[in-house]
Amino acid sequence: MLTLSARRCVLSQSKSPLNSTRGHCDTAPPDVLDRVRTLLQLCADRYYISPGESNSELFRRGWSCSYGPLGVELRRNLLQQWWHSVTGSRAWVFGVNTVSSSPDRGAGGARVIESERFQQILDQAELSREQLIQKLNRLLLSSPSVRTSLLKGALEQFAPSLEMVNKKLPFGLAESGLCFQPSDVSLTRFFLPASSAEVTQTSLVWFCSPRSSSQWLDHWARHRLKWWRKFALSPSDFSSTEVPENELEEKTSRGVKILYKFPWGLESLETLWCRGDAELLQTYKGIRTKLQTRDGRKSIPHVVSVSGNMDRGAMAFLSNSLQQLRREDGKKRLQQRKVLKLHPVLAPVKVALDIGKGATVELRQVCEGLLQEFLEAKISAWPGYLEAVPTSLELLNAKYDEMGVLFTVVIGEKTLESGLLQVRSRDTTVRETIHISEIRNFLSKYISAADKF
Amino acid sequence: MLTLSARRCVLSQSKSPLNSTRGHCDTAPPDVLDRVRTLLQLCADRYYISPGESNSELFRRGWSCSYGPLGVELRRNLLQQWWHSVTGSRAWVFGVNTVSSSPDRGAGGARVIESERFQQILDQAELSREQLIQKLNRLLLSSPSVRTSLLKGALEQFAPSLEMVNKKLPFGLAESGLCFQPSDVSLTRFFLPASSAEVTQTSLVWFCSPRSSSQWLDHWARHRLKWWRKFALSPSDFSSTEVPENELEEKTSRGVKILYKFPWGLESLETLWCRGDAELLQTYKGIRTKLQTRDGRKSIPHVVSVSGNMDRGAMAFLSNSLQQLRREDGKKRLQQRKVLKLHPVLAPVKVALDIGKGATVELRQVCEGLLQEFLEAKISAWPGYLEAVPTSLELLNAKYDEMGVLFTVVIGEKTLESGLLQVRSRDTTVRETIHISEIRNFLSKYISAADKF
Repeated sequence: MLTLSARRCVLSQSKSPLNSTRGHCDTAPPDVLDRVRTLLQLCADRYYISPGESNSELFRRGWSCSYGPLGVELRRNLLQQWWHSVTGSRAWVFGVNTVSSSPDRGAGGARVIESERFQQILDQAELSREQLIQKLNRLLLSSPSVRTSLLKGALEQFAPSLEMVNKKLPFGLAESGLCFQPSDVSLTRFFLPASSAEVTQTSLVWFCSPRSSSQWLDHWARHRLKWWRKFALSPSDFSSTEVPENELEEKTSRGVKILYKFPWGLESLETLWCRGDAELLQTYKGIRTKLQTRDGRKSIPHVVSVSGNMDRGAMAFLSNSLQQLRREDGKKRLQQRKVLKLHPVLAPVKVALDIGKGATVELRQVCEGLLQEFLEAKISAWPGYLEAVPTSLELLNAKYDEMGVLFTVVIGEKTLESGLLQVRSRDTTVRETIHISEIRNFLSKYISAADKF
Repeated sequence: MLTLSARRCVLSQSKSPLNSTRGHCDTAPPDVLDRVRTLLQLCADRYYISPGESNSELFRRGWSCSYGPLGVELRRNLLQQWWHSVTGSRAWVFGVNTVSSSPDRGAGGARVIESERFQQILDQAELSREQLIQKLNRLLLSSPSVRTSLLKGALEQFAPSLEMVNKKLPFGLAESGLCFQPSDVSLTRFFLPASSAEVTQTSLVWFCSPRSSSQWLDHWARHRLKWWRKFALSPSDFSSTEVPENELEEKTSRGVKILYKFPWGLESLETLWCRGDAELLQTYKGIRTKLQTRDGRKSIPHVVSVSGNMDRGAMAFLSNSLQQLRREDGKKRLQQRKVLKLHPVLAPVKVALDIGKGATVELRQVCEGLLQEFLEAKISAWPGYLEAVPTSLELLNAKYDEMGVLFTVVIGEKTLESGLLQVRSRDTTVRETIHISEIRNFLSKYISAADKF
């Protein structure tokens, strides 16, 4: 079904942030096409993203798309880990939240316009061409701009936060939220509107003394790379690189990118910049007294920004964790097993609950009870026992492996007799027998142990 | 500082959802003004919202505003509790995520327009007035609309989700995200742009058989009211009410509102509607085969929607938990003590860490270690020991009470000698002596016990 879509999206110009390393997909070999197609198909089949060609394309570009329940959980887990790692890493990192559209974000960019008011102006027959243009211009400028990054909001929060930290440096402001990317006309061929795309960004804006900003950039670059690799199956696919001097953004003196090696080439997941004090001064209209800290000098703090794209981050982990294994089945036929080996902390479903042979009503009741127990312990569980269509255990395992489900629990007649149940691990494919009273603890311990590494 | 602001906002027409119960603020008695002023001032002083008149006004209206670190944590906690309570309450409730702007959401509403493309059209001197209007209209219609609710996205996810649940009813789709409210010209006097406001909405769209939809509405209305009251200090301020027949929305057959009694009157926190099948049929262009389920009949599922405003929800809990107590101090002077008695699960800071008299360097080291321990256990802690300005313990406690900090831990010389520290409870104001090795467990147990009720 997605053949055309996958081919198209791979063939389309990949908007890679690093020109030097851009994966030119026009020359992509067939196995790359295959891998991308397999990944997108699996994500749509296994409830990570909603089906549909244009939705797959949004997803592949690292933009916010319609996520299915598993994709939602994966991104939630990822954002929660990010939040915890950033706000929990230092005493003085605070969360903030700013609005996504605001009146004074410069002249350009995308703006939210009320179509009724727009239409009202167009409908005024008495207006001359010039009057019309004047009125429309005024409407445009009075309509709020949508943000393209979280930086400006954090800079505006600097002064109120300074009081909170007792005017002492360094400190940081963390935020995650929706941002809008500039328009991309190439999208129209995927039947998407040629307008801004949404991205779930994460941002840490770090305020420090001018002399330490380069060291802080290094600190955070190490911190971030370590974080990405912590959850990876193949950590070496995540790398960091210094931005060459001729590619530095305006007003920045150094930059580091955290990259992921997708099948179609390198793409940036997170970008760190030494931004100096220019934007901070601009935000406070040059009023230096508002920006002064307690460190005895009259210098203005420097800004180190760390901004990530968690939609692309989720895709990177999906791509990274997809293993395709060939093996012989019982009848010596060659089979391909696909397993989404997502890190236990990120995996959206920790355990699936199914019933084996036996008295269905009673077995279901046991499942219901166990499900409630899991939900209370905040272990996300998949109620496979509710599905009416009976499938072989082999097909069921194949499905759960593709969903990245950590463990499958099967409740059978034996459970009713002795309280014993079967637990199958996604990663080892080994089946263990465990007593029903221990399964919750077993899972909790497994997940929290994985969190520690 | 906020006097003018508070007065203005209370005097401004409160946009209450229930006309019959609207709090007419023009006639608000002085003590109501006082209470609102105190609440807004405290929220700005204690890092719940960013300072500023227009920001306070966004907040008071129940819209998304610039939140400070404590406000961010409070809303995060609230959203997490909501998510857990809705997706964990039934086996078949799935999370989804849809994009906030999309091409086909009808003709009206707010749209995201690229100002460069808009400007380009205005700059084309060769265009006649008619051509100009035609081009602008085309731009308007090709620009994506921003959503005003999460309903439409969920309806679009119905068909793909149907496969997942094996075509069986009932099931639900849960989502939380940013929505844009229609424009409100009255805002301009607060120096805000007269355009759409942002709201963090929660949505559960429940699909069920036609004959059971009214029962499900009752079920969810009870479920939701119970949830709001669970975290309340004065549960009776939260209530539910059936929407009178003459106030029903188009296409709905029944409605229930969950209300909160703010000082200025009742406002709606969450709204539940029996929506029938009209919108579902409309979403799928009347193709009934796409909507059919396994229940043997040929009927189309009915929709029950539950949609909440979590920005206003956060404000409701702040308003609900603010206690003002008069008491005499040591010198028989009458003092007013303000305590934000937020539920332990919602309180953004669970513990503040401070140092008493003694060797500062050593005491700080102990605090650092303890802070790391708290952060690892995901107990949000406030590093008060980093503040350079020495304050009396009384002032410190007053500050933490206003922040709603559950416990204050003071590390003193005694801690270095014997490992004992002082823990003060916000709610009882009692000081206990606990061994440093036990404090983490003490807090964890306290919070998880509070979660169970």
